[in-house]
Amino acid sequence: MASSAKSISAYGEARSTVQGKPLEAEEVRKMTAYFRASLYLCLGMLYLRENPLLKEPLKVEHLKARLLGHWGSDAGQSFTWLHMNRLIKKYDLDVLFISGPGHGAPGIISHSYLEGVYTESEDEDGMQRFFKQFSFPGGIGSHATPETPGSIHEGGELGYSISHAFGTVFDNPNLITLTMVGDGESETGPLATSWHSTKFLNPIVDGAVLPVLHLNGYKINNPTVLARVSHEELTALMAGYGWKPYFVEGSDLDTMHQAMAATLEKCVQEIREYQQQARSSKKAFRPRWPMIVLRTPKGWTAPRDVDGKFLEGFWRAHQIPITDVATNPSHLKVLENWMKGYKPEALFDKNGSLLPELKELAPTGNARMSANPVGNGGLLRKPLIMNDFRDYALNDIVPGKTIKGGMANMAKFLRDVVGKNKTNFRLFGPDETESNKLAEVYKEGKKVWMGDYFDEDKDGGNLAPDGRVMEILSEHTCEGWLEGYILSGRHGLLNSYEPFVHVIDSMVNQHCKWIEKCLEVEWRAKVASLNILITATVWRQDHNGFTHQDPGFLDVVANKSPEVVRIYLPPDGNTLLSVMDHCLRSVNYVNVVVADKQDHIQFLSMDEAITHCTKGLGIWDWASNDQGAEPDIVIASCGDVSTHEALAATALLRENLPDLKIRFVNVVDLFRLISGIHHPHGMPDRQWKAIFTDNKPIIFNFHSYPWLIHRLTYKRPGQQNLHVRGYKEKGNIDTPFELAMRNGTDRYSLAIDAIDLIPELVNKASSVREKLVNARLAGKAEAFENGLDPEHIRNWVWPFARK
Amino acid sequence: MASSAKSISAYGEARSTVQGKPLEAEEVRKMTAYFRASLYLCLGMLYLRENPLLKEPLKVEHLKARLLGHWGSDAGQSFTWLHMNRLIKKYDLDVLFISGPGHGAPGIISHSYLEGVYTESEDEDGMQRFFKQFSFPGGIGSHATPETPGSIHEGGELGYSISHAFGTVFDNPNLITLTMVGDGESETGPLATSWHSTKFLNPIVDGAVLPVLHLNGYKINNPTVLARVSHEELTALMAGYGWKPYFVEGSDLDTMHQAMAATLEKCVQEIREYQQQARSSKKAFRPRWPMIVLRTPKGWTAPRDVDGKFLEGFWRAHQIPITDVATNPSHLKVLENWMKGYKPEALFDKNGSLLPELKELAPTGNARMSANPVGNGGLLRKPLIMNDFRDYALNDIVPGKTIKGGMANMAKFLRDVVGKNKTNFRLFGPDETESNKLAEVYKEGKKVWMGDYFDEDKDGGNLAPDGRVMEILSEHTCEGWLEGYILSGRHGLLNSYEPFVHVIDSMVNQHCKWIEKCLEVEWRAKVASLNILITATVWRQDHNGFTHQDPGFLDVVANKSPEVVRIYLPPDGNTLLSVMDHCLRSVNYVNVVVADKQDHIQFLSMDEAITHCTKGLGIWDWASNDQGAEPDIVIASCGDVSTHEALAATALLRENLPDLKIRFVNVVDLFRLISGIHHPHGMPDRQWKAIFTDNKPIIFNFHSYPWLIHRLTYKRPGQQNLHVRGYKEKGNIDTPFELAMRNGTDRYSLAIDAIDLIPELVNKASSVREKLVNARLAGKAEAFENGLDPEHIRNWVWPFARK
Repeated sequence: MASSAKSISAYGEARSTVQGKPLEAEEVRKMTAYFRASLYLCLGMLYLRENPLLKEPLKVEHLKARLLGHWGSDAGQSFTWLHMNRLIKKYDLDVLFISGPGHGAPGIISHSYLEGVYTESEDEDGMQRFFKQFSFPGGIGSHATPETPGSIHEGGELGYSISHAFGTVFDNPNLITLTMVGDGESETGPLATSWHSTKFLNPIVDGAVLPVLHLNGYKINNPTVLARVSHEELTALMAGYGWKPYFVEGSDLDTMHQAMAATLEKCVQEIREYQQQARSSKKAFRPRWPMIVLRTPKGWTAPRDVDGKFLEGFWRAHQIPITDVATNPSHLKVLENWMKGYKPEALFDKNGSLLPELKELAPTGNARMSANPVGNGGLLRKPLIMNDFRDYALNDIVPGKTIKGGMANMAKFLRDVVGKNKTNFRLFGPDETESNKLAEVYKEGKKVWMGDYFDEDKDGGNLAPDGRVMEILSEHTCEGWLEGYILSGRHGLLNSYEPFVHVIDSMVNQHCKWIEKCLEVEWRAKVASLNILITATVWRQDHNGFTHQDPGFLDVVANKSPEVVRIYLPPDGNTLLSVMDHCLRSVNYVNVVVADKQDHIQFLSMDEAITHCTKGLGIWDWASNDQGAEPDIVIASCGDVSTHEALAATALLRENLPDLKIRFVNVVDLFRLISGIHHPHGMPDRQWKAIFTDNKPIIFNFHSYPWLIHRLTYKRPGQQNLHVRGYKEKGNIDTPFELAMRNGTDRYSLAIDAIDLIPELVNKASSVREKLVNARLAGKAEAFENGLDPEHIRNWVWPFARK
Repeated sequence: MASSAKSISAYGEARSTVQGKPLEAEEVRKMTAYFRASLYLCLGMLYLRENPLLKEPLKVEHLKARLLGHWGSDAGQSFTWLHMNRLIKKYDLDVLFISGPGHGAPGIISHSYLEGVYTESEDEDGMQRFFKQFSFPGGIGSHATPETPGSIHEGGELGYSISHAFGTVFDNPNLITLTMVGDGESETGPLATSWHSTKFLNPIVDGAVLPVLHLNGYKINNPTVLARVSHEELTALMAGYGWKPYFVEGSDLDTMHQAMAATLEKCVQEIREYQQQARSSKKAFRPRWPMIVLRTPKGWTAPRDVDGKFLEGFWRAHQIPITDVATNPSHLKVLENWMKGYKPEALFDKNGSLLPELKELAPTGNARMSANPVGNGGLLRKPLIMNDFRDYALNDIVPGKTIKGGMANMAKFLRDVVGKNKTNFRLFGPDETESNKLAEVYKEGKKVWMGDYFDEDKDGGNLAPDGRVMEILSEHTCEGWLEGYILSGRHGLLNSYEPFVHVIDSMVNQHCKWIEKCLEVEWRAKVASLNILITATVWRQDHNGFTHQDPGFLDVVANKSPEVVRIYLPPDGNTLLSVMDHCLRSVNYVNVVVADKQDHIQFLSMDEAITHCTKGLGIWDWASNDQGAEPDIVIASCGDVSTHEALAATALLRENLPDLKIRFVNVVDLFRLISGIHHPHGMPDRQWKAIFTDNKPIIFNFHSYPWLIHRLTYKRPGQQNLHVRGYKEKGNIDTPFELAMRNGTDRYSLAIDAIDLIPELVNKASSVREKLVNARLAGKAEAFENGLDPEHIRNWVWPFARK
């Protein structure tokens, strides 16, 4: 076991990679005062509801009844913000601040307050209200929530600070995103891989991320891994990730100010030099970008111990640093002395306003990190320039007969979106863009690649420093980049294999929460929607097998606020085009589009597709034979493969039982199924009944787990007649037909179910039923014999005339 | 841009860190032959259904109709396996092989075949069947699926090879888990952070993981990041993660054999030396464990190009290397020449059996990696030694009155499970064990920590090299370790905050799929259940706010196979004990237990709790007043906080409307609600009706999103009378009561709903209704004023006599 030397030597006099004392003594004095003002406000937020300037002796009744909030990383973050302020003023920089550590919001919000952004009145009354509303009902949270000026990153869930930061600087050449990275957060997988983002950043067209890894030392109750490895290991790790680490370590304020000022300035200069070099030479290269390791005690500037128990520099400083101040008078006194030690009377005038000599340390206007428009990206958002999607229609088709690839066709539309929006749109995906039949986009924008190039890359590598497609085998990083890109005012689309989009369940949840909460913050302008295109779906997994079969992302999304989530399952190529156009034009949603990438029968002309998508669901008259009569049964579908099988079942029934009246319904917009009370896209029961009836059996063939349809329709009239088929977690190495059969979603099973649901058919259709059962068995046998479905299944087309 | 020098110099003559030629020429010859045999089998699996030994000229009819499978990483993996075989024999090692790269299964399965584990007959007929079943309906997948002998890691989803590997070696001091890590997989977040696992491995009690990072160079369609950074960066990265990297790079077989033999042997020797040093000195330390960087061309030993397009050493070698062999005769010939180039006639005798001189290269019996019992961990599983959970009962309570912490109490039970199973059970969690009120376990097992120690750790740090609790701030790593630990035959429990368990949605999905599929593999012995304890739940988030409110993990789990998933929501402390005991004794499930960590009212004595948990749900007579009569309404609950509010609503109704007959139902075992047809825990409609009625309104207060209850009960008689309340994605910085109110799950809202659902009460209870509405408003006002709920809500207890 190592000695205690490391923990103590880290504090006290600053140790740093960059030497020098760039600050005058007077500057140090003022910066220390400003820092004290920020920390005073942090404690005020945690503890006080009255007596904000401590003009009176601190009493229990001045305290909040419930003490909530975190102290641990406040000082280190505030310190970093303060030092960047100096450089913003000196170099006229454009800087966004991202706060990665969990619950460090007071350190940030205090600066917003001091900069005049986050207060109604810069006086004692304003300060009191500012304190009270923190972590208080009706107020603001203890993360950098949407209410926090300048924030695009809440950090409630850890791990995404760096990927979000890179998202903000792509196509933002002048921006530096200063990113505090928590050492706890650094242990998460998403953060650990996001350091590699430098291999995808082009110094000519993109800005720069300046990470400050905050070695705060402790998480909630544990030391952090990176604070407990050797200096050499940590240096190697950062160098291995491709960065050049600069260390600033200590706690003594005077020397720490000098060290941080010199180091941060060195980093900014290096960034500018690399950018200058690349931009003047027009040769993109990957520098070893600078980053800072800032080691300060957790809870820095708190008392080192209270009653013999460590506070500063230990995990006890994580949350409310002294919890029993309301019941322990001596601890109340400790708190009072601590707060008074910041000398509020020397920082704020008697009205509670920050002294002018301190105020002038911060930048003004939009140069303030708390007021950077990038932090309210909707303000900067410009609509995409898009061709008319109808120009990409699949026109050369016989609906119901022609087999084409809707995804590959849509890729042409997407190619031109890329081409027409070269600084405003990027496509993201984990190494699956080509596999997902979207390679056409590379004609207008190759894959961004700043790693080494080999000669063989010329053989179809599609790599370029100035590409527009972002591919790294980390769904987390792709999603984080996209979120950062959108939140800073641009547009994008993520494409992913269906089973592995679950990897980012939690990230998408958090993004939904962010944009939903933004709706309640009046100054937040709406951002582009987060578009997720899911393909390589459950029904076409073949040899990938069971691990690649999971359509349940829709269940996760459907739980989020109806104000922000939209789910579309276009049944063919023209509907896919219409849906994609709609999604790319929309704002403030998470749009999820599910469409298989393989070739499929095309059903709708472009005009029909537009009509169908506009309604979101509808009766397909050409597939139905109940015109002018009550149907005997409704067959419904949602999802392309599911629609294909449902139509084949409909055809089997119509061929074999021509007297049977069948109504065929297709659903594109999943939330049409729900009541209008519960989702803006929902429809009234009256309309439901007109489409589905309230007294006929309905067989609903669904793309995903069947229960989602029941959850959406549980209150519908006639819901007891609704029989949903979908993926029931049955799969293996299956041909498409065999997989459908395992789950009861194949044409034969659906047709058999229809017969079984209509009492009059029980005897009348028994021979038809037997025929269907035998056909089903034959399909399975052929799969086992040849590894292929029967040819009549593989090449099935709609057998009736269309119109 | 770098020149092409790197790509070419990586191939050809071997370059390696360790020099030396440990192999005799004869050994090299035999190993090359064995390697050729393995590769021949790989191609056979991809292509052939007949003519397995190519005794006849290759014709289209010998090919599989559909070509599926992957070639890309097969050679590198096979090569590594082969070299470890040599050392297993030389040093009598106990080695498990984990295959991280996606779809590399042929490389592994071919060895299982050659070692005689994975074949019914070692002859031509056996080989033909072996080829045909690969990636074929009714056969096996293209990953290391449960059917693969020696596999505990399928790798269908990437990122978990290293965390799984560490899980297998914890408390397995003699085991070396050789882990192939894909360079694509290395880009995932979970993999990127899992390298830090060394800070949690004790060389005295644990075995060793030997990672081989396979720089195969390409993913599906992209180069990999780690293959396109400099040698210096990659070396630094591995050193920064705490490993000592050894490089083996090239393609020339003779020199590569020598390099790999020397290097792998060096690594094994170092591992043994470090273990010896720690074990003899009894001083645990963290060595810089050896690892290997193996750079070979993707698709190694394939033709370098076909028709002028790169194959070997390029991403085109990823999947089926030549796809059009059935339609392009010249390509069929290329394939035939390629396969014949491995000289099958010199490897297998005319019956198709591997020649004895090659056969002897592999170990025998359980020393074969394909037959290591750790790879079928259920064989090694020993039941936990557990005290009677009833001994930990909360006995000193007045049911319905006493407020206690059920979680903190259960921690005592868990403490003794830890204490009695010091090599067979570990507790896992992302830095939340203490926050989750489980710190009592530290008395029997501290937190494993192999990072540096500071003096201040003595102040309640609870760290130790020989601890039993695993805490790293990566849910992915915790889950991966736990899965590896269980799959290798031991027991464990993961505890997590509820909102962030979504981080591992996808991992849990994959584990469910693994154990479900294992049920179909007759030689797989059952492993301990994966137990997930979810706490810090949605209803008690206070200042954490909206980002910490997401109870939707249950929806993800509920989609998995009913054979393997179980969900429990114990309402109080004694039911929690009963449920935990049950889960820890069970096998082959994923058990999810949801219980809040705060103090709550206790409702059931231990005897009552056991009865209740055994039934899984039941009428609480003591809370009901419908004895001997039909109820007017059923009030049901599932989840502790939800039960608390539902009971409070029941009490309000009984106090204000004493004539109203209320039946109170509580659900512990969520799947009791579903039909017995769909889940083994489900119950028949008859029983449902006896409990819930089929004609009375039911108000069901649920812990999670309400729709999950509708999804489970959509076919139940009287389901139209079911009104579910739950979390509806409404939240902010809320007091507990205020949050409940936003979502309609508070006592007043529930009581008001009850009144509104009973037509007779519309007029009769109007004044009571008004009183309830006012009380609800007052609760909100008080929260806004003081940040606290009203005292009568905070300290509410059941107001009636309990028997």
